[in-house]
Amino acid sequence: MSSNTSFFGDLLGSIAERGRALLERSSRVSGATKAATLVERCEELLSGKGEASGVALATDILDRYGRMKTGERIAFFEALAQTFGVDRARLAAAIEAYGRTESDAAAAELHAASEPRRLELFRRFNMAQGATLSLVRMRENLMDALVHRRDLSAVDRDFGHLFSTWFNRGFLVLRRIDWATPANVLEKIIRYEAVHEIRDWNDLRARVDSPDRHCYAFFHPALVDEPLIFVEVALEKEIPGAIAPILDQQRQHLDPAKATTAVFYSISNCQRGLSGVSFGNFLIKQVVEEISRELPNLTTFVTLSPAPAFGKWLEAERASGSSAVLSAADLETLKLLDDPEWPQKDEARDTITPVLQATAAYYFLVARSAKGRPLDPVARFHLGNGARLERINAMGDLSAKGIAQAAGLMVNYRYVLTDIEKNHEAFLGKGDVVASSAVKKLLRGEHSARALVPAS
Amino acid sequence: MSSNTSFFGDLLGSIAERGRALLERSSRVSGATKAATLVERCEELLSGKGEASGVALATDILDRYGRMKTGERIAFFEALAQTFGVDRARLAAAIEAYGRTESDAAAAELHAASEPRRLELFRRFNMAQGATLSLVRMRENLMDALVHRRDLSAVDRDFGHLFSTWFNRGFLVLRRIDWATPANVLEKIIRYEAVHEIRDWNDLRARVDSPDRHCYAFFHPALVDEPLIFVEVALEKEIPGAIAPILDQQRQHLDPAKATTAVFYSISNCQRGLSGVSFGNFLIKQVVEEISRELPNLTTFVTLSPAPAFGKWLEAERASGSSAVLSAADLETLKLLDDPEWPQKDEARDTITPVLQATAAYYFLVARSAKGRPLDPVARFHLGNGARLERINAMGDLSAKGIAQAAGLMVNYRYVLTDIEKNHEAFLGKGDVVASSAVKKLLRGEHSARALVPAS
Amino acid sequence: MSSNTSFFGDLLGSIAERGRALLERSSRVSGATKAATLVERCEELLSGKGEASGVALATDILDRYGRMKTGERIAFFEALAQTFGVDRARLAAAIEAYGRTESDAAAAELHAASEPRRLELFRRFNMAQGATLSLVRMRENLMDALVHRRDLSAVDRDFGHLFSTWFNRGFLVLRRIDWATPANVLEKIIRYEAVHEIRDWNDLRARVDSPDRHCYAFFHPALVDEPLIFVEVALEKEIPGAIAPILDQQRQHLDPAKATTAVFYSISNCQRGLSGVSFGNFLIKQVVEEISRELPNLTTFVTLSPAPAFGKWLEAERASGSSAVLSAADLETLKLLDDPEWPQKDEARDTITPVLQATAAYYFLVARSAKGRPLDPVARFHLGNGARLERINAMGDLSAKGIAQAAGLMVNYRYVLTDIEKNHEAFLGKGDVVASSAVKKLLRGEHSARALVPAS
Amino acid sequence: MSSNTSFFGDLLGSIAERGRALLERSSRVSGATKAATLVERCEELLSGKGEASGVALATDILDRYGRMKTGERIAFFEALAQTFGVDRARLAAAIEAYGRTESDAAAAELHAASEPRRLELFRRFNMAQGATLSLVRMRENLMDALVHRRDLSAVDRDFGHLFSTWFNRGFLVLRRIDWATPANVLEKIIRYEAVHEIRDWNDLRARVDSPDRHCYAFFHPALVDEPLIFVEVALEKEIPGAIAPILDQQRQHLDPAKATTAVFYSISNCQRGLSGVSFGNFLIKQVVEEISRELPNLTTFVTLSPAPAFGKWLEAERASGSSAVLSAADLETLKLLDDPEWPQKDEARDTITPVLQATAAYYFLVARSAKGRPLDPVARFHLGNGARLERINAMGDLSAKGIAQAAGLMVNYRYVLTDIEKNHEAFLGKGDVVASSAVKKLLRGEHSARALVPAS
Repeated sequence: MSSNTSFFGDLLGSIAERGRALLERSSRVSGATKAATLVERCEELLSGKGEASGVALATDILDRYGRMKTGERIAFFEALAQTFGVDRARLAAAIEAYGRTESDAAAAELHAASEPRRLELFRRFNMAQGATLSLVRMRENLMDALVHRRDLSAVDRDFGHLFSTWFNRGFLVLRRIDWATPANVLEKIIRYEAVHEIRDWNDLRARVDSPDRHCYAFFHPALVDEPLIFVEVALEKEIPGAIAPILDQQRQHLDPAKATTAVFYSISNCQRGLSGVSFGNFLIKQVVEEISRELPNLTTFVTLSPAPAFGKWLEAERASGSSAVLSAADLETLKLLDDPEWPQKDEARDTITPVLQATAAYYFLVARSAKGRPLDPVARFHLGNGARLERINAMGDLSAKGIAQAAGLMVNYRYVLTDIEKNHEAFLGKGDVVASSAVKKLLRGEHSARALVPAS
Repeated sequence: MSSNTSFFGDLLGSIAERGRALLERSSRVSGATKAATLVERCEELLSGKGEASGVALATDILDRYGRMKTGERIAFFEALAQTFGVDRARLAAAIEAYGRTESDAAAAELHAASEPRRLELFRRFNMAQGATLSLVRMRENLMDALVHRRDLSAVDRDFGHLFSTWFNRGFLVLRRIDWATPANVLEKIIRYEAVHEIRDWNDLRARVDSPDRHCYAFFHPALVDEPLIFVEVALEKEIPGAIAPILDQQRQHLDPAKATTAVFYSISNCQRGLSGVSFGNFLIKQVVEEISRELPNLTTFVTLSPAPAFGKWLEAERASGSSAVLSAADLETLKLLDDPEWPQKDEARDTITPVLQATAAYYFLVARSAKGRPLDPVARFHLGNGARLERINAMGDLSAKGIAQAAGLMVNYRYVLTDIEKNHEAFLGKGDVVASSAVKKLLRGEHSARALVPAS
Repeated sequence: MSSNTSFFGDLLGSIAERGRALLERSSRVSGATKAATLVERCEELLSGKGEASGVALATDILDRYGRMKTGERIAFFEALAQTFGVDRARLAAAIEAYGRTESDAAAAELHAASEPRRLELFRRFNMAQGATLSLVRMRENLMDALVHRRDLSAVDRDFGHLFSTWFNRGFLVLRRIDWATPANVLEKIIRYEAVHEIRDWNDLRARVDSPDRHCYAFFHPALVDEPLIFVEVALEKEIPGAIAPILDQQRQHLDPAKATTAVFYSISNCQRGLSGVSFGNFLIKQVVEEISRELPNLTTFVTLSPAPAFGKWLEAERASGSSAVLSAADLETLKLLDDPEWPQKDEARDTITPVLQATAAYYFLVARSAKGRPLDPVARFHLGNGARLERINAMGDLSAKGIAQAAGLMVNYRYVLTDIEKNHEAFLGKGDVVASSAVKKLLRGEHSARALVPAS
Repeated sequence: MSSNTSFFGDLLGSIAERGRALLERSSRVSGATKAATLVERCEELLSGKGEASGVALATDILDRYGRMKTGERIAFFEALAQTFGVDRARLAAAIEAYGRTESDAAAAELHAASEPRRLELFRRFNMAQGATLSLVRMRENLMDALVHRRDLSAVDRDFGHLFSTWFNRGFLVLRRIDWATPANVLEKIIRYEAVHEIRDWNDLRARVDSPDRHCYAFFHPALVDEPLIFVEVALEKEIPGAIAPILDQQRQHLDPAKATTAVFYSISNCQRGLSGVSFGNFLIKQVVEEISRELPNLTTFVTLSPAPAFGKWLEAERASGSSAVLSAADLETLKLLDDPEWPQKDEARDTITPVLQATAAYYFLVARSAKGRPLDPVARFHLGNGARLERINAMGDLSAKGIAQAAGLMVNYRYVLTDIEKNHEAFLGKGDVVASSAVKKLLRGEHSARALVPAS
């Protein structure tokens, strides 16, 4: 693969260079500003000229874009939003025609006419060598700009739509990441790890270079050295309740043949520019299959997951004055959390634990957003994938980040292959949070009386 | 690549198997007919269920489809056309909303609402292992059905649209085809060669296993062993006028370092199911670059091409009674063509040659279709790519096929990199056929007086 | 691998070219004959000059050799035998020194002094690109010459010794051969098949491109596209007694999951120049392991083997007048073999079968060469590897070749992994032919009374 | 490659396991000590048993060896030296026979008889998976023992002899080392760098991941992830005189297209166990070819090398009281070196420089060892390869190591392809040190009067 790609890359580079030479001449004539020139080039690329010299034109455009400053790029995004939007005249005509016949052909023309011109532009950009990655990076720039420029969101939507098609699951390739992986890929694993920071190469090595640690990533053939998403897996003898022993570089290694439990303890998306394209669901399920084929003795597949919205929610409950879940005694107990030293104090931890567990059970099982959905984004992800809430671990992550985010709380979601579809439908169809009886037992009083979904 | 893909393939197979087991049970319950069951599965795949068990569902659907007979498949295509077309209600609402605001968001919803549901269905099919190839083959089945069922053409259009996006030029990989290429790929080169038949493995070897013969193909990462298009190249010392010496297995080999001319003597598309996705233009230009980097002594890049519509046109002219190009003397001369032995007779060939040349010059340079375009499809392809008509060879292909198709005529189109854009624009913009002066000189009388485009 | 090798090859080519340019000049000065020049170059290569310009010199020498005619090559072999033999003076001194001290150091010097100079020469030849293959081919030329020139056999012995070290089992790589194997390798499988001819590409495909047929070869990293030895395997439900059904292109394919028996029906060495280096033993055992890991349902590993010396031996027995095994009745029966049509006659086959079986049992179990070894070379190979003689098949190969070689007889040798060592020791230590009781029962009269080795 | 190797590895592992199971049983019976058991196994491996179960036996032996402690290993080395030495009786007979006939055959038997039995043993060890690396490591253990046990040196010599044949230059593969190289290989580059320490991954990256820095290594196919030797190359605009700017992570990068000079600033052997097998000469020359093909603008190929024996020699001269090169004034000047701060003092550096240069010129050009060879091992290596001494740099390496080793001195050796053979012969034949006129001019007084070799 790599040798073909590289050959291919060199070659396209060479086509592009010749093309650029031709283009440079005319560019000196033009006195227009950078963004205007870029727009002009884009028009050429959409015109017939793009058919003859498409590779050169696309390369030139992406090169120019690459050298632009932020302001110039925003000007270009504005042009994408306005100049390369829908052809209004064509659309009006198509609506009118559809109104007359309502035929399939008229509907098809309506679909074509309502496609923003920038979509074809993006597809033609992709003729240039390395363009797919450039487009992913371009969208990252756009997302930065979006914060203040909501008017550009239509462009962002189009990127998302195009990438969903290009990064279709059928084109993804799963690769094991280990110590024989090229350094330029491993470097990105270090950089993109979003859940439990990888501090340096030794830390990385502890996660990928021992038989009881696996790591897998999805790749796309057009982004050779760029992982899209990766998951880190620890092989254990039981479901773990805390992250520190897993990350400990000095831990005792386990013979994989003796492991019964695969723990997905970190899942990180790598490409912000691919936001909205979902990979995680597919990745987890494929890794479950892959790893259970290699190690047939594995019977349990769980995550060890953060509860990223729990900390803020808990603070709000404590401050609200009318919490539906926290009793006066709970509130008193939770004052212990205000002492920054509490994680180091045995008694404090012991006192806090049952309150946190009960409160967290309420947070996951009962509390709902305005839209009626669970409050926790990680919960929504795994429950939506068909996992069930298996266990609540009060003292799961006592790092500064873990305390700040969730008062140290972590949870396990469990994937049972034969229940996935059922769980998924229960969650999406009826909003049920499927949970183990252990979790449900943590609910107190009236909440536990609610008819909660049984887990098989 | 291959090892990952294969691993990947195995794995998906395994996911699918387990999924299938689950599905089988429910399938026994259903008593519906095959096509109806398939439609039902497709609805599931489009529903939330598809998110949880997408790979298994998609695999099941493609397996079922694969076992269907022609009639059942057509029933399925009908469902694709009708059941999985545009959501009319949503579209009507979107039109109405757009009418009110004409906002970008309303236009975007209009675009989404006018997308036939089958497009999302196709994208979800692609979760299954090997689905991309299955979908290409599905479209081939559809194209067979289209002959009698024009009502299915909307489905075909959607396939074409999707494949254009998936098989975007940026995802194609050029690979050299030679004697070290895997046999399962070479076998397809034999099978797909559409211009000059490859009779057997020895014939193939003569085309790919000598230093003065090259062959290149485009591949897509999801179709590992399936070439999409390939081109065969002969290295020569001059522009050739006939195909037989090139194909001759006993020919004298030429030291590539002494070659000046690369002759593209055969270009074949391999996947009928990818019809409408254009690869040829890109392939030729990339091969020109590739081969001139490897052999910097090459200065001339030409094709040796058939003229597939010339034979029929010539017969029509001869029969018309009012040909604008054939004089009475010409008609008399061309009666020689009615003797099946003419290609073996020196005198006949000599007599026919000048008449054929002049007539062919008219056919290419002057004659136009009702839409004002050149009559020859191969001419339209190369001229549209920016090549120029370099030479007309009266006795280029005296095989039975060559005689039948074009009275033995072949032509050379020449690619001059620096003229490609200019030629392309002249052809597409003004309909000019750029030709060498040698070709233009072949025109007689009033035709040559026409202002013809000069070639640089 | 291949890309590095190729890069590597190109590079060495380039070093060599520059070196050659330097060498050419001096070569014009020299007026010596070709062989003399070659010898001179070889002396340079052995001298200090070879250290500075070794790659160029070695390349030049192998190029010159490559262009030589047979007579010139034999002259060169003579020089290898005489000029590049042992340094007699150094050897005499080393013997004398050893006589004095008998020290390890003196023994080491004796070993070094008794090494023919050509061995170091061969090792230095190997600096040139592709030299390993050139040396294998050079030995083939030498073997041709040996027929009439036994005085060159010392050179041949040295080649054999060197190749044993270079082609040590630890450097061999097993590769599956199938329809995705490069054509230039498959072509060699066709060419090198020595047991049951592969007629053409379709015949090859029947042997490597169906799930119930496997093929494996050993390769050496320095001979990228050259198999060293390969074995063809048929998956069956029982031990087969005839070759024709296995080779039948129209046969019914068997689902590998239903196979119980792996049949090694053809083993071919590919490189005559590596004669004396044994690969077969290792290949069979590694393939047994490989294939039983992939298909755990396989329980039986047998060959279907020719008996290449049986035909001649049988004729001699028939002609001898005093056969120890053939009775008068047998002799009468065997006259049927003199009718060339016998294989087509049911009755003849039925009559001959029991006589052939009993005679063959004697041939394998009782008859011995002057050295006391079994007469059949294939038997010696498999029994030496630790297999046992499992079955005698009277009508195993009724092709012309099979009839000529062994009156149609074939045998099965069976590999039982746990018995291999025991069988091997019985055969090599005591000369016992381990056979199944079925085979032993075929022996008649006094022969069966002999204490024959029981098979477990 | 990797997939085959791995497959191969797994397989051999599996053969070995089964074999081991068989062997274990008998091992419990034996009550012998570990080393004795190992010797017993080795005898079995050399016997016929080794032919049937060689892979299992060899694997068992190397496993046992791997678990041994130092003392046990030395006992095993003693057995290798004594029990597996030459077969004295056979040797005596061979000497006697040779004395009678002096025939080629007798000489061949003498050669065979004088081969220590351990050589065949080592070759059979190599049947086990990964054995080649194990043998290299075994020799490292032996080299450690040699310090006190010179009686084992014969075993070491045999390892060296065998490895020279196995690691013949024709089997080495050159690979570029860069940031896309697998981490397990890069880690070894960090570990094995012997000249200028690589401190961490960032330091490594500065040396392999910028366009003006290249790194190449030789590999052997049987040692997949183990570089044998590597060289680091800096692309520069002129011949550099100091190492610090080259290693500076903050340096300005140079566009390779503007470089004229390739500087080999570090060459490190990686495998102590392959000591005596020369790779450096081949590596430098192949990299010169490789890099000049890629960058045709490069005209100059030089090293920037340490002078590892200069420091000690200089101290001895200063202490001798009768130095042939140091005048009283020189001795006075060089007292500055006794101030540890001198490298930081401008004036001291300026004062010392000319004296160091002149003294170093004498050290390289005039001074000789008892055997008449230059004193500096790095000089002997490069001059022996055909390089010339190009420049002496007084302040080349002011690091603590550089000061300690050579008072900060570094030198450039230059490789001019067309002079390599001439230089090599001058050096090896006549002992001439070929040097640039600049270096020769540094010599003072009577030394410069000596007839020194001119450099072209």
